[in-house]
This record gives sequence, structure tokens and C-alpha cells, in this order.
Amino acid sequence: MPAGARGQAWGVGIVGFGTVGRGTAEILAAHGAALAARTGLALKVAAVCRRRPLRSEEIPAGARAFQDWRQLVAAPEVGVVVETMGGTAAAREVAMAALDAGKPLITANKNLLAEHGEELFAFAAERHLPLGFEAAVAGGVPVVRAIAEGAAGDEILALQGILNGTANYILCRMETADLDFAAALAEAQQAGYAEPDPELDLNGVDARDKLAILARLAFAGGMAPAAIATMGIRGIEAVDVHYARALGGVIRLVASAERGPQGVHLSIRPWWVPRDSLLGRVQGVNNAVVLTGRRIGTQMFYGPGAGGAATGAAVVADLLDIAAAFAAGRMGHQAPPGFGPGPPLALAEPPVAPWYLRLTVADRPGILAHAAGILAAQGINIDSVVQQPGMAKPRLSFVITTEPAADAAVAAAVVRLDAAEYLLSPVLRLRMLPVA
Amino acid sequence: MPAGARGQAWGVGIVGFGTVGRGTAEILAAHGAALAARTGLALKVAAVCRRRPLRSEEIPAGARAFQDWRQLVAAPEVGVVVETMGGTAAAREVAMAALDAGKPLITANKNLLAEHGEELFAFAAERHLPLGFEAAVAGGVPVVRAIAEGAAGDEILALQGILNGTANYILCRMETADLDFAAALAEAQQAGYAEPDPELDLNGVDARDKLAILARLAFAGGMAPAAIATMGIRGIEAVDVHYARALGGVIRLVASAERGPQGVHLSIRPWWVPRDSLLGRVQGVNNAVVLTGRRIGTQMFYGPGAGGAATGAAVVADLLDIAAAFAAGRMGHQAPPGFGPGPPLALAEPPVAPWYLRLTVADRPGILAHAAGILAAQGINIDSVVQQPGMAKPRLSFVITTEPAADAAVAAAVVRLDAAEYLLSPVLRLRMLPVA
Repeated sequence: MPAGARGQAWGVGIVGFGTVGRGTAEILAAHGAALAARTGLALKVAAVCRRRPLRSEEIPAGARAFQDWRQLVAAPEVGVVVETMGGTAAAREVAMAALDAGKPLITANKNLLAEHGEELFAFAAERHLPLGFEAAVAGGVPVVRAIAEGAAGDEILALQGILNGTANYILCRMETADLDFAAALAEAQQAGYAEPDPELDLNGVDARDKLAILARLAFAGGMAPAAIATMGIRGIEAVDVHYARALGGVIRLVASAERGPQGVHLSIRPWWVPRDSLLGRVQGVNNAVVLTGRRIGTQMFYGPGAGGAATGAAVVADLLDIAAAFAAGRMGHQAPPGFGPGPPLALAEPPVAPWYLRLTVADRPGILAHAAGILAAQGINIDSVVQQPGMAKPRLSFVITTEPAADAAVAAAVVRLDAAEYLLSPVLRLRMLPVA
Repeated sequence: MPAGARGQAWGVGIVGFGTVGRGTAEILAAHGAALAARTGLALKVAAVCRRRPLRSEEIPAGARAFQDWRQLVAAPEVGVVVETMGGTAAAREVAMAALDAGKPLITANKNLLAEHGEELFAFAAERHLPLGFEAAVAGGVPVVRAIAEGAAGDEILALQGILNGTANYILCRMETADLDFAAALAEAQQAGYAEPDPELDLNGVDARDKLAILARLAFAGGMAPAAIATMGIRGIEAVDVHYARALGGVIRLVASAERGPQGVHLSIRPWWVPRDSLLGRVQGVNNAVVLTGRRIGTQMFYGPGAGGAATGAAVVADLLDIAAAFAAGRMGHQAPPGFGPGPPLALAEPPVAPWYLRLTVADRPGILAHAAGILAAQGINIDSVVQQPGMAKPRLSFVITTEPAADAAVAAAVVRLDAAEYLLSPVLRLRMLPVA
């Protein structure tokens, strides 16, 4: 591939012209001169593509508009392809076609990488073409680079992330505005922070697909996202937020990867975390990743997780790296760890941890004794029992916190508790982050 | 320059074998295999150099030891030079000689970049050689990359950093252990967090030199570090920590760069910040950078600021980038923004801000009226007056907080207050970060 001459323009083709695609185009239009000064190459949007026809005022100045992505990929004025269409089947075709046409690819699509990452990186390596994906996880937080760097110079022991801004917004509003789950969700939808169908945000699957990508980078091995134990936030009630507060903390949906002697444990589940812990301080729709390395210690990366501007800026960061290499005649493929042909990640059981168990019961004498007996039978020590005064007897919620216990033992105890005739709804189980 | 063949070894020469140099060598020894898998090139320490002779057990296995850096730079087995010696005069010679010998350079030396950055980057560009400096600011926090990326895809409006871990440790210990300044400093020295001569940490000059580097990256223009208004933490007393707490906040030494209509304002000074603000949460010897972009919004990067392991890991991150490019036969120079031949940064006056003014006085009636009159004469509105009950009259400290006011007006008022016969020590002035 010939190098771009200094001062020459390089055409960007954007497939899927939604929020992120438009955010990318807006940044290129607004910062074109500064970007050209930095890379030695003017980056301009040469073509955009959306299945639904674009109105003329939606099309960036000087760009061609297509409805068929094949035409965009083939267009000679397109030097680099940005895929922001989402989904996996068509996105995979776009990505492979772009690389096949000798054009570097940038994708903001976590699902594409979670499902087809290995195939895409193998093909990009074969074609010696860069494949940028900073935008695919935690839009405005440069975690892809940070984790790849962190993993390079250190052994990563743990990664804990808040990777879904919608879920975090809902949990924060339940805390700060004393809303119940349904009201907080409705507010998130009104504010545009939750999709009309928010299921993938609420059931943890969105965070899971992101964790699958970050864990590959951090631990240099692959796994199927479906292998990650995943629990969402639908079971969390206003009473849990109150109990969490009474214990000095808040509830967060945590994406966790922890290295143990047998392998790496991966999970998505709600945790109780101390209010002044790094995770407890993550507010609203922000994302964060806390990275713990054997040598470096703890780092945190924090910022907006989504939105056209933040995610577009991540796309532009990749564009700049690629354009600078292209302008200098030294563009090539750098394989990210974890997507190559190496052995898959060894997955391990969860480590022992303290747990928060919320029981909602039809109150009568003897319940605590019975529940405590079930825990004792599994060898689980109770740390505290918390009950809000003045709760109505017919439907009473109380919380048992445990000392560090094995996940399997707690799971077995919860099965027995769930079967107790006094229980009115399933036990809510939160992992607890110990107070530092 | 020829590409390194896959599987070949590439020799690292480390000049200045102190904490950071040893940290770098330890990581290369411990993670050699993983790093080789990632870059396709085995990185090994081929030579180390220290003026004072190294004992044989200090020398990494298989490495040669020199006392004269010229011999290390000239050694044929050294492919890349890591400068961790500190200082500026000799370090500049090492850096120029390495580049002149066609060897890429990695430096952990903020003073070198602050004083000679433009010359070094110009020479590296001329020689088409990479010059890595992630380790030069906030060791374990990848802020150099993050800011360069952030500035690429967005217009940076403000950068606020805690860049000196020693000062932050002292302020935190004054808060959490109720120590006075001298006791907290002594503790920091005992814990190895402060040098025997801690002056550059306490007077803000260390943070200033780091801010000079970050501001170049963020705003793409140069300036002399001495042009940055700098105030340290020596004037902060236990009573200020108490008053800060009474106001709901803590004191932090903040490195600030803010874009205004006339240019960028740069300063190092202690700020009052709300306890639960991003800056207020930075604990102990950690560093942090809060970056606000027009489009992206607010990001934070947090982690250990110093130490051999954290800083060594930053050196290794640079080494990996360079080795991967070398192995692929596409090593070259990428100029960082702000160190090139462009126009210098336009510097601006401080923005209006609320202020904390602590007056220590020999109490008698009429002092508040007099002080308030001085402020009123400068057009400064008082927001609150705080006085701890039960203070001894002969030496009483109280605090006036102001509404947002121009820096020049506040400075003029402080000159007049300092001249008042009732004042026992100079007014302590803290900028206040408004509660979000």
C-alpha cells in the first residue's frame, strides 16, 4: 500500500450513519485542520451509508451517500472504513469486505468483536491492515488502549468495570432520588439513556459482551461471552438500596475478571460496594474500569460510556493512529492480545467473598433461626443481620451479610432459602466488596 | 534501519540504574516471554550504566555494566536506550547521543522534556526515531497517551491534575490522622514517600514541570515551565484542614490548565475541593488527571504516580510499542503535539473563581469589618465567614469564602490584608472548586 503524501486528503467511509457515525463526522468536520496538522494527512468524510435513505441535509458536505454498503466499500475515494452499524451478520460482511478491499477498518461494534473477533483479527493480520476498536467498549474512556498497555508491562490480577451506563444510571437514581426500579427505568427512558427495549442493559448481557473483549486484552486468552456468569439488575428493589446505604455502601452492576490460581473468574452481577470505593463513586451514565496489576497497583479510568460525541471521539482516536501510520508509509497490523490463535482463557470458579442476602418474607417467629440454620449447614458464617425498623409484618425484608464464603455454598443455601414456605420472592444475592 | 527478525532478541540499554531503571529490568525479566509473544521480538536488558560502580548482584543476568554512558550507547548489542538517570545536562547528552547513534530513546525524565523537549523531538524527527516518554509524568497512570488521544478527537477545555504524590500524601495524612504539616512531612519521609530534600515536591515545582508537559500535549503549544504561576503547600496548617472539612471538602495541590477566550491559564496551587469531587477522592501517593473535553465531557485517569514498578511499567509500555514497530519494519517518529515548531501556547489570566481566605489574627473587635471593607473595595462579595468555636483569642484563625472573583482583585485585597497590623501570618488563599 502506498503511503499518503503529506497534505493529501484521505477519505473516510462511514457505514451505519446513526449517533456514533454522525458524532464521528462532526468531529472530523470541526477539528479537520488540527487533525491534518497532527497526522500530515487531511481526513475527510468521503462517503456515508445507511439502508434508510439519508436526507440531503444529513449528508456531510462533500460526501457521497449510499444505501448499499458494498458501493461504499468499493468507492475509490474511501481509504478507510468505519463500521458503526451495530449487529453482527451484516457488520461482519462489511468488515471482511473492507479488509478484503485493502482498506483498514475501525469498528465501534462490541457484538461484532465478541462474536467474530478472532476471525476478523486473523484476516486483518493476513492483509497487514490495522483494525481499530477503541470505540467498541466504554466509548469515551480509552480502556482498550489502557488495558492493552497495562497487560503489557504488568501481570493483571483483577479488572472491575462499570460498563453499562444505563444500569448505572438506574441504580444511581434509585439511590439519590429514592425511586423504585420501575420509576428509575422510566426516567432513564425519558432522558434517552435507555432504549425502548432496555433488556440487554438490564439483564447484564451488554456488559457481558464488553467484559468478554476487555478480558481477552487483559488476560490474553479467548472465551465465549456466554461462558460468563451473568446476572442483571431487575431483582433490585428500593429496599435493597436502603439496606445498602445502611451498610455504608451502594449497589453497582460490576463486570469482574479476577485471576486466581486455577484461572480467571469472569462475572457480571450486582455488587454491594462501599460508598467511597472507586466503584462506588461512579455516577450516572459514566463507565469506569479499575485495573489492579501485581506491580503497578490500582489504576482507574473513568468517563462517559456512550453517546455520539464520546464514542465518535474514540473512533477518531483510532483514525488518527491509522492515518499517521499511513502518511508515514508504515501502516500495518498489530495484533491485540487475546484474539489470536493461542489457547483459550482458563476459566475459574468465583473466589470466596462476603455476600449480601436479602430475604423478603411473610414474618412469623422462627424465620431467622431457620435461615441461619440453612447457612450454618453450608458452613457459612453470618456477619450481620440488618432489619429496618417499622416494616410491615406481612411483607418484611431483612438482610443477612455473610463472612467470606464459597460461591457454591452460598448458591446451595439460596436454593434452600428460596424453597422456604415463608419466602415471598427469591433471595437477592449481592457480592460484597470488602471495605478497604 | 533493518527490521528485527521474529524471535530475535533486541537489547535494551538502561542509563541510570536507580529505582525506575531497576523496575524496568525486573519487568523485562519477569514478563520476557509474554512480551516476546506480543511483539515478536525478545526484549532483554543488554547493558546498564551507573556512574557509581554496580555490585555484581545488582547487574541483570546477561547484561554488561558500564560506568560511562558513552560506552553503553555505542555498544552494538544495545538496540534501544532507556534514560532514567534524571537531571538535565548529562541526560540531554545521553538522549542526543542515542538518537545520533540511530537508537530509539525512552525517557522517564520530566525535567529533560520540560527543558529540552523541543530540541529532542526535532532531532528524533530528523532521525525518524521514536521517542517514548509515558514514564515522564505520573508513572503508573498512562496520561501521556490518554491526553494525546483526548486532544486528538476533541477540543480540551480543562485539565486538572494531582501530579505530586508526596504533596498529596502529606495533605491526606493531615486530614485523616489530624497531623500538622511538619508531622505529616516527617511521616512521608519515614515512609520513603518524600526525599530527604523534599523542596521541589512541596513548592509545586515538580508538579509544574509535569503540567508543562501535559499542557503541551493537551493544547498543542509550548511554554516555559517558569511561566506557570506556582504555589506550593508549605503555608497550609492543621487549621486549614479543619476549615476545609467544615466546608465539606479537602485541600489538594492542583495542577490546572484551563482554556479561556484569550488563551490557556496554567497554574499550580492548593485548591479547596468538595470531598466527593473527582479530585477530592484522590488518596495518598496516587496521581490523577481529570480531563474535560468539549464533546467527550469529563474523563478521569487515576493510579500510582511514582515508584519503580509503576514507572518501570510505563517504560515497558513504550518499549513494547517501539519493539512491535521495529519487528514489523515500520519504526518511525510520531511527533507529539506541543513540542514542534508551531506557535507557543497563548497564556491567559486566571478565570474568576470563588476563593478561600484564611486569616490568622490577634483578635480584637472590628477585624472582620476591616477585612470585609478591604474585600468590598475590590468589588469582592463574601460568601461565608467560618470561625471554629473556642479558639484562643491571642491567635485566632478564621476563614472568609468569596463569591467568584477576579484573581487580580483577590491578589490586591490579600496584599492589603497582609499589611494589616492585626495579621499574625500571611493570608492563605485557596482557589475553590464549586460544588457540582
